[in-house]
Amino acid sequence: MPDHPFDAAIALAPAADGLFDGATHPAWANMVGPFGGVTAATLLNAVCRHPQRLGEPLSLTVNFAGPIAEGPFRIAATPVRTNRSTQHWSIMLQQGDEVATTATAVFALRRDAWSSSERGAPQAPPADRVAVQAPPAFVTWPGRYEMRFVAGAWPDFDKGTPQDDSCTAMWVRDEPPRPLDALALTAICDVFYPRVFRRIARFAPAGTVSITTFFHADAIALAAQGARPVLAQARAQRFVSGFHDQIADVWGDDGSLLASSHQIVYYKA
Amino acid sequence: MPDHPFDAAIALAPAADGLFDGATHPAWANMVGPFGGVTAATLLNAVCRHPQRLGEPLSLTVNFAGPIAEGPFRIAATPVRTNRSTQHWSIMLQQGDEVATTATAVFALRRDAWSSSERGAPQAPPADRVAVQAPPAFVTWPGRYEMRFVAGAWPDFDKGTPQDDSCTAMWVRDEPPRPLDALALTAICDVFYPRVFRRIARFAPAGTVSITTFFHADAIALAAQGARPVLAQARAQRFVSGFHDQIADVWGDDGSLLASSHQIVYYKA
Repeated sequence: MPDHPFDAAIALAPAADGLFDGATHPAWANMVGPFGGVTAATLLNAVCRHPQRLGEPLSLTVNFAGPIAEGPFRIAATPVRTNRSTQHWSIMLQQGDEVATTATAVFALRRDAWSSSERGAPQAPPADRVAVQAPPAFVTWPGRYEMRFVAGAWPDFDKGTPQDDSCTAMWVRDEPPRPLDALALTAICDVFYPRVFRRIARFAPAGTVSITTFFHADAIALAAQGARPVLAQARAQRFVSGFHDQIADVWGDDGSLLASSHQIVYYKA
Repeated sequence: MPDHPFDAAIALAPAADGLFDGATHPAWANMVGPFGGVTAATLLNAVCRHPQRLGEPLSLTVNFAGPIAEGPFRIAATPVRTNRSTQHWSIMLQQGDEVATTATAVFALRRDAWSSSERGAPQAPPADRVAVQAPPAFVTWPGRYEMRFVAGAWPDFDKGTPQDDSCTAMWVRDEPPRPLDALALTAICDVFYPRVFRRIARFAPAGTVSITTFFHADAIALAAQGARPVLAQARAQRFVSGFHDQIADVWGDDGSLLASSHQIVYYKA
């Protein structure tokens, strides 16, 4: 078992062809089942470890079809189509006969091309000037991150006031520190508490239904970030009929956009 | 065969259990294969027509794994898991033995809940004050839309100048007019020419690799929009190593956000 709690949580044992065995990890427990970000990273890890993998992650969509119970699970990763520079994957996580999570991923060989960053990082003081906020006590997984909130910290559910905007921005890194890679970045894209908590200033049942992440940085760029905090920002656009979207973007401390992510969230309020 | 070219293009004949037969439609031809938006709508239509479908579209991810050749195709739509208020689908389009497109979708039963629109429509003159721009001649499908550009119209590839921003905004509707529904909205989310064209002011090989759309409006809200133009806006955040993202949002003429969509685009420049 790897030492770091993130690597321990996403660890997989190859079984038969394209099948991988894993298990939930108590350090990553959410209200129900594990933190979705670590489930997404585990699904991506199945492709990363598959002997037929080509290139690096370009996009990942994870659909949380049902709760994951504490205990073992099996992931099937299938290369549906391999082209010259892209490879398309279908991924499924099951517990017994029940499908808990489905996913698709695109891996790609990147190459030199015209490039431009149109969206720079938001204004924020450097990470070491922002205080670390202790995670709330009612759930386990936030303790796996060091969060330094620039805006939109965890709401005080007892005496908070509803906010007009859903925006959160934070410097964040794994706790204990761990060098950044696409797997850790996948989880960080989901590191935000549900935006509805901030808007209504009270707890409500809520959970990700589907999340898609686009990776803008390759392995070399992510390695250059090392274990230093990244700047992550999230906001919602519309809350309606029990579902809201959540857009999350993550920048390196050099200001480059590393990943952008979008999820649709179930809520009851 | 339905009269309207959109309905003709997405038409499917049910075959065996969960299988549907369709064919490309010449009116929707793109540079290679059909317009991706109509392919996405056709995949969604397979779920809409499936006898086990529960509720309405909430999210759709379509991965363009390979080109679709002119001619027939077969779609397999599988309900992977059905919960009380959400249903998860796996969808695949094949031509012969070759997988051309994969998709996942979530359908949902919406219900009354606390609601808020955090992102209003951008400033734009009313549709009838904006001139219609004729589509470019080098590709067929744009003729299936009436486009009234507020910003970022089709670039002049012969004498255009590179632009600092990738933003396009337009009033757009099907041509001929057709009442809006989730299928037409799916296609409209992909109605923008690749953002790289605008930035470099010349043509470049480019195509969607993966697109995810979140539906914020239900069938009743979409029906209320009728066949009137919707306001659609797109922009990219980062172009790097031959891939760029593209964010598209679509508002009704009452200012409500109907759908938000995100795609990752391959380009060679």
